[in-house]
Amino acid sequence: MHEYSTLAAVDLGSNSFHLQVARVEQRQLYPLDSLKEMVQLAAGLSEDLILDETSQNRALACLEQFGERLRGLPQHAVRVVGTNSLRVAKNSAEFLQKARKALGFPIEIIAGYEEARLIFLGVAHGLPPSDEALLVVDIGGGSTEFIIGSQLRARKLESLPIGCISHSQAFFPDGKITKASLKQAELAARSEIQAATSEFSATHWQKAYGSSGTARALAHILALNGYNNGNEEATIITRTGLEKLRDYLLKQGDLNKLSIPGLNPNRRIIIAGGFAIMHAIFTELKIEKMEISNGALRQGVLYDMLGRFHKEDMRDISVQEFMQRYRVDQQQAARIEALAILFGKQLLVDYSDKEETENALKLLSWAASMHEIGISVAHTSYHKHSAYILDNADIPGFSRMEQFELSQLVLSHRGSLAKNKCFFSQPINLARSLALRFATIFYRSRTHIDLPAMTLSLNGKHCTLCIPSSWLENHPLTATLLNNEIKLWEKVNIDLHIKNIN
Amino acid sequence: MHEYSTLAAVDLGSNSFHLQVARVEQRQLYPLDSLKEMVQLAAGLSEDLILDETSQNRALACLEQFGERLRGLPQHAVRVVGTNSLRVAKNSAEFLQKARKALGFPIEIIAGYEEARLIFLGVAHGLPPSDEALLVVDIGGGSTEFIIGSQLRARKLESLPIGCISHSQAFFPDGKITKASLKQAELAARSEIQAATSEFSATHWQKAYGSSGTARALAHILALNGYNNGNEEATIITRTGLEKLRDYLLKQGDLNKLSIPGLNPNRRIIIAGGFAIMHAIFTELKIEKMEISNGALRQGVLYDMLGRFHKEDMRDISVQEFMQRYRVDQQQAARIEALAILFGKQLLVDYSDKEETENALKLLSWAASMHEIGISVAHTSYHKHSAYILDNADIPGFSRMEQFELSQLVLSHRGSLAKNKCFFSQPINLARSLALRFATIFYRSRTHIDLPAMTLSLNGKHCTLCIPSSWLENHPLTATLLNNEIKLWEKVNIDLHIKNIN
Repeated sequence: MHEYSTLAAVDLGSNSFHLQVARVEQRQLYPLDSLKEMVQLAAGLSEDLILDETSQNRALACLEQFGERLRGLPQHAVRVVGTNSLRVAKNSAEFLQKARKALGFPIEIIAGYEEARLIFLGVAHGLPPSDEALLVVDIGGGSTEFIIGSQLRARKLESLPIGCISHSQAFFPDGKITKASLKQAELAARSEIQAATSEFSATHWQKAYGSSGTARALAHILALNGYNNGNEEATIITRTGLEKLRDYLLKQGDLNKLSIPGLNPNRRIIIAGGFAIMHAIFTELKIEKMEISNGALRQGVLYDMLGRFHKEDMRDISVQEFMQRYRVDQQQAARIEALAILFGKQLLVDYSDKEETENALKLLSWAASMHEIGISVAHTSYHKHSAYILDNADIPGFSRMEQFELSQLVLSHRGSLAKNKCFFSQPINLARSLALRFATIFYRSRTHIDLPAMTLSLNGKHCTLCIPSSWLENHPLTATLLNNEIKLWEKVNIDLHIKNIN
Repeated sequence: MHEYSTLAAVDLGSNSFHLQVARVEQRQLYPLDSLKEMVQLAAGLSEDLILDETSQNRALACLEQFGERLRGLPQHAVRVVGTNSLRVAKNSAEFLQKARKALGFPIEIIAGYEEARLIFLGVAHGLPPSDEALLVVDIGGGSTEFIIGSQLRARKLESLPIGCISHSQAFFPDGKITKASLKQAELAARSEIQAATSEFSATHWQKAYGSSGTARALAHILALNGYNNGNEEATIITRTGLEKLRDYLLKQGDLNKLSIPGLNPNRRIIIAGGFAIMHAIFTELKIEKMEISNGALRQGVLYDMLGRFHKEDMRDISVQEFMQRYRVDQQQAARIEALAILFGKQLLVDYSDKEETENALKLLSWAASMHEIGISVAHTSYHKHSAYILDNADIPGFSRMEQFELSQLVLSHRGSLAKNKCFFSQPINLARSLALRFATIFYRSRTHIDLPAMTLSLNGKHCTLCIPSSWLENHPLTATLLNNEIKLWEKVNIDLHIKNIN
């Protein structure tokens, strides 16, 4: 894989959008440039989870600016991730098309756990090396992530659907802060966090870090107002400091009129929700002091990209882990993988974008490795169970779209094909499905087989398998299966032709 | 659980319906009576999997006769199972309503693996005790089961969608047997069986048994025609015998005119499909000789019922196995189970059918034990993953309907309730969902909690939780969660009331 000297990450958060450009030198990243805008996407989410036009327009305007900064960077030197608001919005697919156009780069939605993993990677890279167990908390606009890890590795991850924007809207809709509403907001946050309490409380870590804008803003206010017992560093949050701020917020009683040193007016209407969540976290997890981290999701995305260039792809590790967890027959998986890749290369030989082809084959290889994980649920329709797991599991390193592709590839390797018709509309998908499916046909007996020289090719809707008919005569079961395939592919308008190349 | 002195099992197979009545004495079963009718349900299945009216009427007429024989037996002394044709038919739900009415007893659909397990139980009980590994093959009308086991325990199970009726229809639709059509039928069967070859071939067992009508008919023909090398016992099938029968079938060339000693005219039109499958099994699994077993599915069902009366319920064993496989937090599961059963008993106290209540509570207890298995897939929406696994997995001992109930109970323990609205239309389901859901609320913190004396009751659409308000004041997080519940249940028209009983 090509390594680039400049990398960029864009984080489309529920509260802010961030762009980070960095220079790569000797496997280290040096920040070159960054942009930030508080787009507040989460504020535009209706109760029935539709992203309204105003917030979409704010987002698109910001992405056009970001796009200008990114212009000229190669496609694979840029990674753009979307988080909670884009995860939950029902009209997110439409928006993403427009967003991709405005930005000039594709956007990947990542799951809460993957977000948490990347946040930890970003935070940990910004800290001096240490063996201590660290807690990292990231209060976003729509979700909050909790991670415990050490060195550069996250060990426990949690993502809860509470964020500073959604919480502010739910408990302080008119900007008024009363004793009752603040209490309710804190209790609601605590009752969510409660599920994570036993795994993330103070006995499980040595130091706590906050990595979000909310944490940074709170630390800033506490410092500028001398709430941290005289400690004037703007990089810590203490429990006593939070209590003083709490009293102050209740005394003021109205977010719209709030004027407190250190509070950016943009953040005024969402500070109460963010405060309530932070207060709840301190209470539930028994935190006394939290430091503010410089690293965040965008840095994590950059380091993850860097790892991929150096064959330390988290996705490889996850695939290995999944094969073990679901007790996959490793020999069978290796056979299928080798043949699927052989067919895949034949089918994609004329594909012009070499880097895209390489990525497509990687996904195919992972799909082949994991295509039997569903047997752990049931033999009957196991391909559907494999697809379900791949589409729903937390698989570190993979975006939602990549998981969907894995899931579709695996679903299409067996049974009727109508269920994948939409997926096949992309030739690169059709090619990969053919490759995986034919590989499993040749190894149906689950043993080593001496295969003949053969080629699989695709031309529009016409697929041809060239294979010696003498081999097929000696392997009548495979011949029977291949003949069945002709009928099955016909149903999705693919014309399969088996040609003798004796 | 009450033990009955007479038990009955009904097997609604794709080819034949069987009724077996037995007397129970000192934990042994003694056959009292049996009825059989070749209903050939599978013959009435259209290509788009609709059971036609003619075959439904044949089935209903037979069930009315069976019902007459069963009249007077208590509900829980009778178990009725349906297999492949009823598993796959799309209009099976409608038919089952009529069938239940005709028979007078509820009918359970069982999955292929469960069918295989019960077949082995039936076969093994009919054989002298031995440590040998046995292969049991059951060629049904629509599916074929393979089992390897020893003593009374099945160790490997497989169920493949090939059966004597479906195979005869596919390859010998007009009754003509040609060299080509027979070859095609055998190859098609072998290519299905191939997937099981590596696990079920001759090196894995010492003796092979056939337990279906097809096996019995073939053995009968071979014996009466002296095809078994002079061995005239009508209880074995040899490879050489099959080859001689094959030559004979090809020479005759037409099933409609076939007249061979030992062949029941009813079976004439389906013998070629059954033969092709048996021949393919002998070839793929390298079988030389197969004995005919007296036991079959219906005996397995009877012994399984007997086990349940003696606290050797396969379902208990499966639930334990699933909790381990999916690494369930056992302490948390035990807490939830105890509280769910307490609530369940309170809610069902006025329910008149004591045996049904007992069964309902058992299902609730198992649902509580397994409600977190989906965490193995992902934390996010884990209740949906738990429900998916429970609905799709092969869980020995459970019928499809029981798995559906488990799945629905688990699905309803978290999140919004609209998805379960249909399930709630049965008061016994609503009661159990309430019980499980409230149990998980009280233990959200995943630790031991001193619970107050409290009661949960249900009156139509009105549910009341009586709990000391002093306890709630000291447990504000639980109070918050309970208040949220009021809104969530309102959306499915259940009026939840939290009442102080200080």
